[in-house]
Amino acid sequence: MNKYYLLAPGPTPVPSEALLAMAQPIIHHRSPQFKPILAEAKEDLKYVFQTQNDVLILASTGTGGMEGAVTNTLSPEDKALVVRAGKFGERWAEICEAYGVETINIDIEWGRCVKPEQIAAALDRNPEIKAVLIQAHETSTGVKFPLKEIGDVVKDRENTILIVDAISALGAMEVKTDAWHLDVVVAGSQKALMLPPGLAFVCLSEKAWRFNENSKLPKYYFNFAKERKALAKNQTAYTAAVSLIIGLRETLKRIKQTGLEKIIAHHRCLSQAVKTAVQAMGLKLFTKENPSEILTAVEAPDGIDAQDIVKILREDYGITIAGGQAQLKGKIFRISHMGYVDEHEIIMVIAALERTLIKLGYKLTPGLGVKAAQEVLLSHLSCI
Amino acid sequence: MNKYYLLAPGPTPVPSEALLAMAQPIIHHRSPQFKPILAEAKEDLKYVFQTQNDVLILASTGTGGMEGAVTNTLSPEDKALVVRAGKFGERWAEICEAYGVETINIDIEWGRCVKPEQIAAALDRNPEIKAVLIQAHETSTGVKFPLKEIGDVVKDRENTILIVDAISALGAMEVKTDAWHLDVVVAGSQKALMLPPGLAFVCLSEKAWRFNENSKLPKYYFNFAKERKALAKNQTAYTAAVSLIIGLRETLKRIKQTGLEKIIAHHRCLSQAVKTAVQAMGLKLFTKENPSEILTAVEAPDGIDAQDIVKILREDYGITIAGGQAQLKGKIFRISHMGYVDEHEIIMVIAALERTLIKLGYKLTPGLGVKAAQEVLLSHLSCI
Repeated sequence: MNKYYLLAPGPTPVPSEALLAMAQPIIHHRSPQFKPILAEAKEDLKYVFQTQNDVLILASTGTGGMEGAVTNTLSPEDKALVVRAGKFGERWAEICEAYGVETINIDIEWGRCVKPEQIAAALDRNPEIKAVLIQAHETSTGVKFPLKEIGDVVKDRENTILIVDAISALGAMEVKTDAWHLDVVVAGSQKALMLPPGLAFVCLSEKAWRFNENSKLPKYYFNFAKERKALAKNQTAYTAAVSLIIGLRETLKRIKQTGLEKIIAHHRCLSQAVKTAVQAMGLKLFTKENPSEILTAVEAPDGIDAQDIVKILREDYGITIAGGQAQLKGKIFRISHMGYVDEHEIIMVIAALERTLIKLGYKLTPGLGVKAAQEVLLSHLSCI
Repeated sequence: MNKYYLLAPGPTPVPSEALLAMAQPIIHHRSPQFKPILAEAKEDLKYVFQTQNDVLILASTGTGGMEGAVTNTLSPEDKALVVRAGKFGERWAEICEAYGVETINIDIEWGRCVKPEQIAAALDRNPEIKAVLIQAHETSTGVKFPLKEIGDVVKDRENTILIVDAISALGAMEVKTDAWHLDVVVAGSQKALMLPPGLAFVCLSEKAWRFNENSKLPKYYFNFAKERKALAKNQTAYTAAVSLIIGLRETLKRIKQTGLEKIIAHHRCLSQAVKTAVQAMGLKLFTKENPSEILTAVEAPDGIDAQDIVKILREDYGITIAGGQAQLKGKIFRISHMGYVDEHEIIMVIAALERTLIKLGYKLTPGLGVKAAQEVLLSHLSCI
């Protein structure tokens, strides 16, 4: 009778209305049946991105959108400033290097946050920098970055754009594309947008579109100008990932009907419950600065391998969370509370974590974590 | 009570067992639950590709696989020989140009076929050509190319590989990757593999992997060496398109259980029925040489716009077929009989085409096309 529970930072659970919509017989991507679906998704994406600009829909995972963000705005030998504060910051640098963009890296200790002044100073020192590349939320460490303040640093520099990987952030925490002057924002389907993996989304500011006109890096499949033209006709440049876009319409409808503000508050509530609970159990948060509402990264207690925690949760209790990545493997575990996750699942995962730790020999009074989570949930009116 | 019938060359109908498998709650792409599914799909892909080599699974549509085929085997300023005999041949040339690969094009009149001797002659004239780029089946014209013979031309040239876009061919017509010495074969999910769009598949020969080692074109998202390494561990380099791969396992199971040979014979039977029927109705086949079993491209009768035929079939009869692309728009229509299509649907589309043409003023005794199709179906024991 074991059920499968998914509390990892992507893929995340998909609501049944989206699963069932995607299970309907497939339709053609250039048909009059499909175009209104794409048109609706296109409009609702603007709502989630908080933008007036088009949001391109690509048939790839988020990394494809990240590559496109670089290749569609920059040229060979351009300089880019990369905030490397985790695995996904490193990915920005790798993409730049693969395409011959010179990187200047701001290396931040994993678990800590970059300061907007560090970015300002780097730009002052290297005014020829064409782009600042950063995450909205670094999934490997659970840190969220001060995008609004960084937007203020970049916005008046004519020669520089701000490119944001918001793959694990968009729809779960505040990402104000237009108001914060984020020039390129990349998102993915399998995070807070509550869909299976396979779609990337990219939104460009007018400033970024001007960069696009002069961009000389090679590109074909991820060609934003071509996609923008197709999108104006409610199409995609190449074959659309029809079924995923049909699912997208459903999850965007859910987001719009609930309201983005309420959803963000919901994530804040779940996050606080998990963070309070694990600390009540005597565990330490791994994230030292600016912990996000999207996931909770926790250090394994002394003498316990974090991978064993992940394994017991999965094998004995049917709950999939995430371990640590790269050098953090075995040292931390990450509980995601992003997307289609409710407060009952939070109680469930905390309770299962208690039983897991006790099995592994950790001294703990059962119920301590659950009690702390309960208190947070009771204190919030915003959990939905 | 109108139903939706899809007889266009991609997306094609998806069997319900795949739709329902994809509608199950999503699981994590690095979990022990997912790995055996990917492992099974990986093995069955080898069966359909008729290869001993790995078949990479990419989260993109076929065009992404085409781009990767170029960027993972070639270097800047390499020369490539492109057979341009339709829209998808043009796409090969565009990809090469986007990445700074010099193209030598063999331009073939749309609807006609390249001769292996033309390729041999071009390679003799330009022995520095690194790759021959061609389609297995040119979807825009309905022509299939003599891959076996072209494989014989290329196989002993140490300096040249044969790259084949088999997106609309694989699983519907014979594509013997290993036996025919096809060095790179690209396929897509939304054709004869009977899935929604969103997956590309690429298979490389040992010779092509050697080219990969020396390839200097930039790539990141489509990085075949990285994918090959991940595939060995039953993973993908980036997030896997989990739900589509779960569907893939189902459709591959269907293909394997039925048998590739039987499926190819089935396509041959349906194709013959459609081609015989439209000719019995006094219509002309557009494809002048080597018509494929995948679709039937038909010239609109004098005075009738092919787009009107497409429109009436869609609006009055709920049947989606394809019109002509580029310069063929309005001149031809294309009935696909690829993938999950049965003989009853062939009768249905021929009958509806009869009624459509009569509505448009074409002189025709109703039933003439259907009678011809019936006779073909009766003469075959191989339709399944």
